Amino acid sequence: MATAAQQLPGEQSTEQRIRDVKEATRGVTEQYPREYLLKCIAEGRFPEDCWRALGEFGLLGLSIPEEHGGSGGGVLEMTALMEGLAEAGIPMLFLIVTGLARVPIVKHGTLDQIQRFVQPTVSGEKKLCFAITEPNAGTNSFAMTTLATRDAEGYVLSGQKVFISGADEADWILVVARTTKVSDVEHRSEGMSLFVVDAKDPNIRMQALNIQAEAPEKQFLVFFDEVRVPAENLVGEEGRGLAGMFDSLNAERLLVAAMSLGTGDYALKKAVDYANTRAPFGKPIGSYQALQHRMALAKAELEAARLMTYSAAASFDRGESAGGQANMAKLLASRAGTQAVEAALQTHGGYAFDRDYDVVTLWPLVRLMEIAPINNEMLLNYVGQHVLGLPKSY
Amino acid sequence: MATAAQQLPGEQSTEQRIRDVKEATRGVTEQYPREYLLKCIAEGRFPEDCWRALGEFGLLGLSIPEEHGGSGGGVLEMTALMEGLAEAGIPMLFLIVTGLARVPIVKHGTLDQIQRFVQPTVSGEKKLCFAITEPNAGTNSFAMTTLATRDAEGYVLSGQKVFISGADEADWILVVARTTKVSDVEHRSEGMSLFVVDAKDPNIRMQALNIQAEAPEKQFLVFFDEVRVPAENLVGEEGRGLAGMFDSLNAERLLVAAMSLGTGDYALKKAVDYANTRAPFGKPIGSYQALQHRMALAKAELEAARLMTYSAAASFDRGESAGGQANMAKLLASRAGTQAVEAALQTHGGYAFDRDYDVVTLWPLVRLMEIAPINNEMLLNYVGQHVLGLPKSY
Amino acid sequence: MATAAQQLPGEQSTEQRIRDVKEATRGVTEQYPREYLLKCIAEGRFPEDCWRALGEFGLLGLSIPEEHGGSGGGVLEMTALMEGLAEAGIPMLFLIVTGLARVPIVKHGTLDQIQRFVQPTVSGEKKLCFAITEPNAGTNSFAMTTLATRDAEGYVLSGQKVFISGADEADWILVVARTTKVSDVEHRSEGMSLFVVDAKDPNIRMQALNIQAEAPEKQFLVFFDEVRVPAENLVGEEGRGLAGMFDSLNAERLLVAAMSLGTGDYALKKAVDYANTRAPFGKPIGSYQALQHRMALAKAELEAARLMTYSAAASFDRGESAGGQANMAKLLASRAGTQAVEAALQTHGGYAFDRDYDVVTLWPLVRLMEIAPINNEMLLNYVGQHVLGLPKSY
Amino acid sequence: MATAAQQLPGEQSTEQRIRDVKEATRGVTEQYPREYLLKCIAEGRFPEDCWRALGEFGLLGLSIPEEHGGSGGGVLEMTALMEGLAEAGIPMLFLIVTGLARVPIVKHGTLDQIQRFVQPTVSGEKKLCFAITEPNAGTNSFAMTTLATRDAEGYVLSGQKVFISGADEADWILVVARTTKVSDVEHRSEGMSLFVVDAKDPNIRMQALNIQAEAPEKQFLVFFDEVRVPAENLVGEEGRGLAGMFDSLNAERLLVAAMSLGTGDYALKKAVDYANTRAPFGKPIGSYQALQHRMALAKAELEAARLMTYSAAASFDRGESAGGQANMAKLLASRAGTQAVEAALQTHGGYAFDRDYDVVTLWPLVRLMEIAPINNEMLLNYVGQHVLGLPKSY
Repeated sequence: MATAAQQLPGEQSTEQRIRDVKEATRGVTEQYPREYLLKCIAEGRFPEDCWRALGEFGLLGLSIPEEHGGSGGGVLEMTALMEGLAEAGIPMLFLIVTGLARVPIVKHGTLDQIQRFVQPTVSGEKKLCFAITEPNAGTNSFAMTTLATRDAEGYVLSGQKVFISGADEADWILVVARTTKVSDVEHRSEGMSLFVVDAKDPNIRMQALNIQAEAPEKQFLVFFDEVRVPAENLVGEEGRGLAGMFDSLNAERLLVAAMSLGTGDYALKKAVDYANTRAPFGKPIGSYQALQHRMALAKAELEAARLMTYSAAASFDRGESAGGQANMAKLLASRAGTQAVEAALQTHGGYAFDRDYDVVTLWPLVRLMEIAPINNEMLLNYVGQHVLGLPKSY
Repeated sequence: MATAAQQLPGEQSTEQRIRDVKEATRGVTEQYPREYLLKCIAEGRFPEDCWRALGEFGLLGLSIPEEHGGSGGGVLEMTALMEGLAEAGIPMLFLIVTGLARVPIVKHGTLDQIQRFVQPTVSGEKKLCFAITEPNAGTNSFAMTTLATRDAEGYVLSGQKVFISGADEADWILVVARTTKVSDVEHRSEGMSLFVVDAKDPNIRMQALNIQAEAPEKQFLVFFDEVRVPAENLVGEEGRGLAGMFDSLNAERLLVAAMSLGTGDYALKKAVDYANTRAPFGKPIGSYQALQHRMALAKAELEAARLMTYSAAASFDRGESAGGQANMAKLLASRAGTQAVEAALQTHGGYAFDRDYDVVTLWPLVRLMEIAPINNEMLLNYVGQHVLGLPKSY
Repeated sequence: MATAAQQLPGEQSTEQRIRDVKEATRGVTEQYPREYLLKCIAEGRFPEDCWRALGEFGLLGLSIPEEHGGSGGGVLEMTALMEGLAEAGIPMLFLIVTGLARVPIVKHGTLDQIQRFVQPTVSGEKKLCFAITEPNAGTNSFAMTTLATRDAEGYVLSGQKVFISGADEADWILVVARTTKVSDVEHRSEGMSLFVVDAKDPNIRMQALNIQAEAPEKQFLVFFDEVRVPAENLVGEEGRGLAGMFDSLNAERLLVAAMSLGTGDYALKKAVDYANTRAPFGKPIGSYQALQHRMALAKAELEAARLMTYSAAASFDRGESAGGQANMAKLLASRAGTQAVEAALQTHGGYAFDRDYDVVTLWPLVRLMEIAPINNEMLLNYVGQHVLGLPKSY
Repeated sequence: MATAAQQLPGEQSTEQRIRDVKEATRGVTEQYPREYLLKCIAEGRFPEDCWRALGEFGLLGLSIPEEHGGSGGGVLEMTALMEGLAEAGIPMLFLIVTGLARVPIVKHGTLDQIQRFVQPTVSGEKKLCFAITEPNAGTNSFAMTTLATRDAEGYVLSGQKVFISGADEADWILVVARTTKVSDVEHRSEGMSLFVVDAKDPNIRMQALNIQAEAPEKQFLVFFDEVRVPAENLVGEEGRGLAGMFDSLNAERLLVAAMSLGTGDYALKKAVDYANTRAPFGKPIGSYQALQHRMALAKAELEAARLMTYSAAASFDRGESAGGQANMAKLLASRAGTQAVEAALQTHGGYAFDRDYDVVTLWPLVRLMEIAPINNEMLLNYVGQHVLGLPKSY
């Protein structure tokens, strides 16, 4: 089936590429509006229909080369898709997970791995999630202890991972694990490898976290108890997993940024509509600068963060080192998104906390993005050290 | 039964009076800790046992003169009680409602009214709530349209009120209503009166709002459809209701401020405990200035807002005009409380949004206090106009 | 003489064009470093040598078409020049004035006007400044009253203008004046015209303002007392002056943004150097997050504002409506620039206010850019009304 | 001569004591208004007449017991005096220096020392300044190296001190110096002593710093080159100097806070006056919330910081440990003062930077108070560690 996204010609300006993806996205979001997502959240179920529609429109194939059944494009297109969904009030967390998990397989995996693990995600038929964070290590990935031990038949993997979004929906989990114990490597960044693990393995146990995110995707604490992983599921070279992973974490930053940007814009649209009609003292409250300027500043900051986000995405797709811009994009977008939602809250007065007005319901996910998947303090550390040249602070 | 609060001697320094009330409050909160409140919230029920215990300890009698069965003291003691509850993680919204509703009856009501409506609230046996805000009027009380028409037997009251906390629990509602239509008064602030209305009247209909506040008290849209109110339930002079009310709104400000302060401190305590033990990079994250200074600044702002709050309460109790300080206290305390909870969120990293950690659950109520019962923008308007002498801005 | 800037080829990516201009700019700033500017400020003289060098390097010819003796390029190149100067600690206010004043002449003027008034500014031989703001009208340009009355020989111009930068150095002043009194036009935006006025006319009196800007350019209150202006000095159509002008005010916004960005970066560089060496407690103070994160956040905001600035400049040069982006660029860049200088101040401790350390000396100009040439509140009004669609607030 | 301050009765409420001192202060500031101070600054001379008037009114005797020729009262009265001066636009830096230097002599000195060094400062006839900070040690007082070596005739003192306000005006300098080298003490806080040194000693050399503070007092780098100090000028016990000093640093915090508070109020008064009359769009700009709310928030924060300041002062005077409150007072007051001046700057538009409007001239001193005499980061460290119980961060 020919889809809007598949028809994107190869040579286009960045702006045009973004516009094309967003237009294609509207084809899905008009069918699956905010109300649909709210219903999924209320019923505690994954928005499967919408996900499949994204597949049918070729949008899940973005960033996957056409030779692997994808729709082409790069992280820039995935970013535009994420932003388009969020702007419509459908910020699909699972898209971030998917985007992140596929990058290293496409980049470092074998053709067989791409065909088995990535290709079926293009239609939405199969799902892939991602596990790196551990309860004790937190943001310090080097401190992970999940261990995959080699034996004749492959690997045996044991450990715990936390904050694993959509683990219950996933068919496979891309797991970062040590293949050499931390005590046996020279530097703690060494000795880690990437594995695609069958999410339905009986030796995997999942415990749902009670996360308040107003999103249909649940998050899990996942226990791996001597899970057998075939050798052919090792992605890239043994022991070089983190290097391969770190690069794709920049892609994750950009998808998170896009989610914040879109949600911020969605919130501002609601706030502007309300502020243009609500008038307890005779004139619309949107004419009060205390509200108007708060919204306007949030808008300006969203727009600037948006330029940073797509600039970083374009760099990433050109294969350049995008770390500085990607980190700044996530930092600024998550702050601006939260500020936009905060402006919407204040604009709605007492109704802001009436869930039926669907404003307070925007806050948890957008605020969480200042913390997850990595907290903004670590991004400031990155900018301080690697952009400005200051000493390490932690 | 002799209670701690009843034993408070008449002559004490402000600080000592606060300490005494807080100590007495601990007698209740040790019995009904945060877990108890969370259970009530989860089960959707009013924390009746805790409320009765407050009555038994004489704490619900604070601010009510001993000759009316109260424990004496003033708004300062009520404020200390509210802060003490919130510091222990038990911010009882209904205490604000109670405190607010009783002030005008004690001040402007007849002895009979005090005995009928106020005295039974001292033990917690009966409950009193308060209704002023209307859906269309919002913060503009002058625009209210709820009307009480006089006839031979008393008054007939019709209209709608919104954001009425605890209306389902209340036995009586103190209602502000017009007794002269706005078209027949010279200035819109005139022609309003106060009535005590039977909350169980069949002509009253209540519709629960879907408010996200993480509090056991629900909020309601209340419809009054030709509710008969006996003439002896008119509090104070007919047509002078707002003047009598406005003064007690300052008391409400201070109880709200106290709730924010206590909640802020509760959040900081949790954050400090977590920051002193969590150490993904080897040393406790509390030693990182990005977190430590954010907590420390919130603490300093809480302490300053606390001084403002009790200074205003003491002024109020001395019968002085406390408007400026009360408004600044609510403004600053609600901001500082939110900042404290925000600091606690950021400190907890990904666990901040895990409801089991009970951090994200602190946010809705504390953030709502920047909006309700009156938004901080209106308080800034007050300070701008009445403290600084600038022109009206709205 | 062939100059670096003149050699810029026509077809280049935006980034490359910026890099080329900055490299050419370094040719001048290496010769005329910060110390040179400080000396000019101390001696109260215009940095004439540096200005002439900019001319010799072809940099003053940027944005002027080659057929008029310029170096080509557009506002984007001028913006890069301004930023390059500011990054080196040489924020030349007069470049903003020049850039702004030339735009409407090149765009709406006759060939003769371009040759007489614009061409001689390319070498730096002649100077052009700009006068729009009036003491009573302030930011409300529509309220201006300076009047040019037509007679047989041309125009007679009378009125007052304020905050005229570099008026004492200029050969000509581009003046916005009414040619029809406000009482005779339908809408107050009509009836204004642009004139090139001889700055040395005896009927012009200039009064230096005591502006604290730490810049060599002075600002003036300028009195026009029946100044004769030849008819051929009218730029564009009579009565259509403001329309022609408003467009070029966007160019001014971008030059101001560039000055803020460059100054912010200059300040951060100084701060980083200091923070990497100063170590009263044993380790460099740059490793304290209170300082590092403040610098890092300022850096991130500078980078985002920079993308907005050049994005707006490219739009402007393509002839698109750049108002939204230009206003957001100035808003964000001026805020970020100030934050960077504030971070530098705090980093330098007590030495921050020692003028010999040249940190406090960066503050006035950068902070002024949040106010001048238009205050950020008006920009927020613009974003509120024209980007978000909210009602007018003033 | 009986003065207003001398007549203050011993038993008064805090508020009344503050009011009395402020009223007495107005007797001086009406005679020596802001214009007088600006003139002193312009002419580079100490405001000697005003200082002597403070002496004549008994105000320099505040905090000095009547038995030593003082006017009684405590740090609370000195704080009120400082605030009163700053509110009138006369923030006398030298009062802080004086207040700080006298505290340890009165508290730990001999009667002879009090009579020689403190008593003559009550009339203003003699002046005392204070020297603790060293160029390399900065905020880390423990790292000081200035050494006083004991010999038969007394001490010989050598070293450097920096940021010594008013050193050129002083008759004596209270110097903190090591009497035991840092290499010979167990803990670096030990081995320091306090000396009163003759400021006119030929072995003292002073180098004026080029500090931008818009204050008549100059600051100096002071070189002590084998200065002989008689043994009877040692204040308190040898080696116990820092302990004695640290306490009085809290008094300094409060005087600095008071200067910030008064200057903030002075700035707001100017801003309100301007905002009530300036009206480029027809109505006073004070009716725009962007300006009004910024001023109102600054006002609220000033008021809260003021309560903290006097609460700390009262604690200090009662001999309680006032460290927490004093540090929070300086932190909050310096921030609020700066915010007030920033609000005044933005309100004045382009005229903000016209020195003749005397707004930009308020900024350096008030902003400096966020850095000096100790930077706010160190105060946040104090609150974090000693109030909240977090680990040391530096």
